[in-house]
Amino acid sequence: MSEKHIPSKYVKTAKESGFLAHIAYDSVIFGFDGSTLKILISGYSNTKLFALPGGFVKENESLDDAVRRGLYDRTGLENIYLEQFHTFGSLERYIPATIEKIMLSNGHLKAGENHWLLERFISVGYYALINFNEVKPKPDELSDSCEWYPINELPPLMLDHHEMVQKALETLRGNINKKLVGANLLPEKFTMKQYQQVYEAILGENIRRTTFQRQILGLEILKRHEKQFLGKSHKAPFLYSFIK
Amino acid sequence: MSEKHIPSKYVKTAKESGFLAHIAYDSVIFGFDGSTLKILISGYSNTKLFALPGGFVKENESLDDAVRRGLYDRTGLENIYLEQFHTFGSLERYIPATIEKIMLSNGHLKAGENHWLLERFISVGYYALINFNEVKPKPDELSDSCEWYPINELPPLMLDHHEMVQKALETLRGNINKKLVGANLLPEKFTMKQYQQVYEAILGENIRRTTFQRQILGLEILKRHEKQFLGKSHKAPFLYSFIK
Repeated sequence: MSEKHIPSKYVKTAKESGFLAHIAYDSVIFGFDGSTLKILISGYSNTKLFALPGGFVKENESLDDAVRRGLYDRTGLENIYLEQFHTFGSLERYIPATIEKIMLSNGHLKAGENHWLLERFISVGYYALINFNEVKPKPDELSDSCEWYPINELPPLMLDHHEMVQKALETLRGNINKKLVGANLLPEKFTMKQYQQVYEAILGENIRRTTFQRQILGLEILKRHEKQFLGKSHKAPFLYSFIK
Repeated sequence: MSEKHIPSKYVKTAKESGFLAHIAYDSVIFGFDGSTLKILISGYSNTKLFALPGGFVKENESLDDAVRRGLYDRTGLENIYLEQFHTFGSLERYIPATIEKIMLSNGHLKAGENHWLLERFISVGYYALINFNEVKPKPDELSDSCEWYPINELPPLMLDHHEMVQKALETLRGNINKKLVGANLLPEKFTMKQYQQVYEAILGENIRRTTFQRQILGLEILKRHEKQFLGKSHKAPFLYSFIK
């Protein structure tokens, strides 16, 4: 879908388009705005449909590279923390009428036409952790919005995309300690309070401040920086960064 | 590949065969013979090539069902413990000459012919845990052996299948406590020593007997059975089973 404005009558098959048929990816892109965990959602305004940003794999690129390309197109970011979490291959997720509706509504398809995007897809789910403030999300070829939504206030998502979000969140929760997910969601220097907020947002529950601090400092992954007194407040909190 | 003896000239495309193009699965089927962790490996004797048992997804079946069908064909077992662990989509894994060699050597292809199996595949990896003693492995259509190999004595595997085994093993190790993997690899009643051997085989390291027993009994997942004195030995060990 990152190929621009190819008239659909010329690309009815995947082979003609240079993509692999039947394989898609969908990405759950997490960002942390300082207090809330959010994900990027594509909207198709003509149809009022919402979806995770996704795409397809070119014949001459790896699956991972296809996902990186799609993320770059949506966020402008390279070197994103990216992890595959599950591949979705049920029969229930094959609803060509939904895709047809989107393609008809924005002129990518004429009524009754065949198109490779209307065939069955098995989709590989990836989650990404990005620094919320570095990103200006951009819609792709088929969608007309790409916006942040808090994970607790998502619009109704098409196909099995809600299940994908849940599975991504479960994986993220399972990895919260062993993969230092906070490092990818926080600015380079952060307060202990910000770090705790990331944890709480991912786990969906509150943690006692003292418990959190003891656990995190016990991991010996943080470097504490000297306070910079700017005259504003003597009570400015310590800033931390991750030990590389 | 579970369709029997369809002449290849009639099934040059995936669509004609009823399968989805470009999607495969490979399965790492773990079994425990009482002392060693083993996996099932398919052999292609004409070519001296070895591979994980794998297959393809029919147009009208889910990815999970395709894997269950393949496992049933290889092992005769239903209701196998099965878990998806990673999807492999590199360009390096696309080596059509290897597949061509296998198909030519057993008459599934004539020299120079096209075939959908020679196209690029992205493969979804699943691992399965089965009771070693319940299984008589059967080769599939393209292979001529299907045998157990200890994980430390595998033959050279084709494509990225060694990487698949490593990734499956890492996932299994990560899940060893939270998913009670032992329950699927042991007979219904087992000794503490057998259970410890499963752990050691998966982790690839020895554990102190007292440490192991304390940890496992602390989980409160085991039921201890009364000793049955059969006159043979007064020192017969206790048998355990998992609390359902």
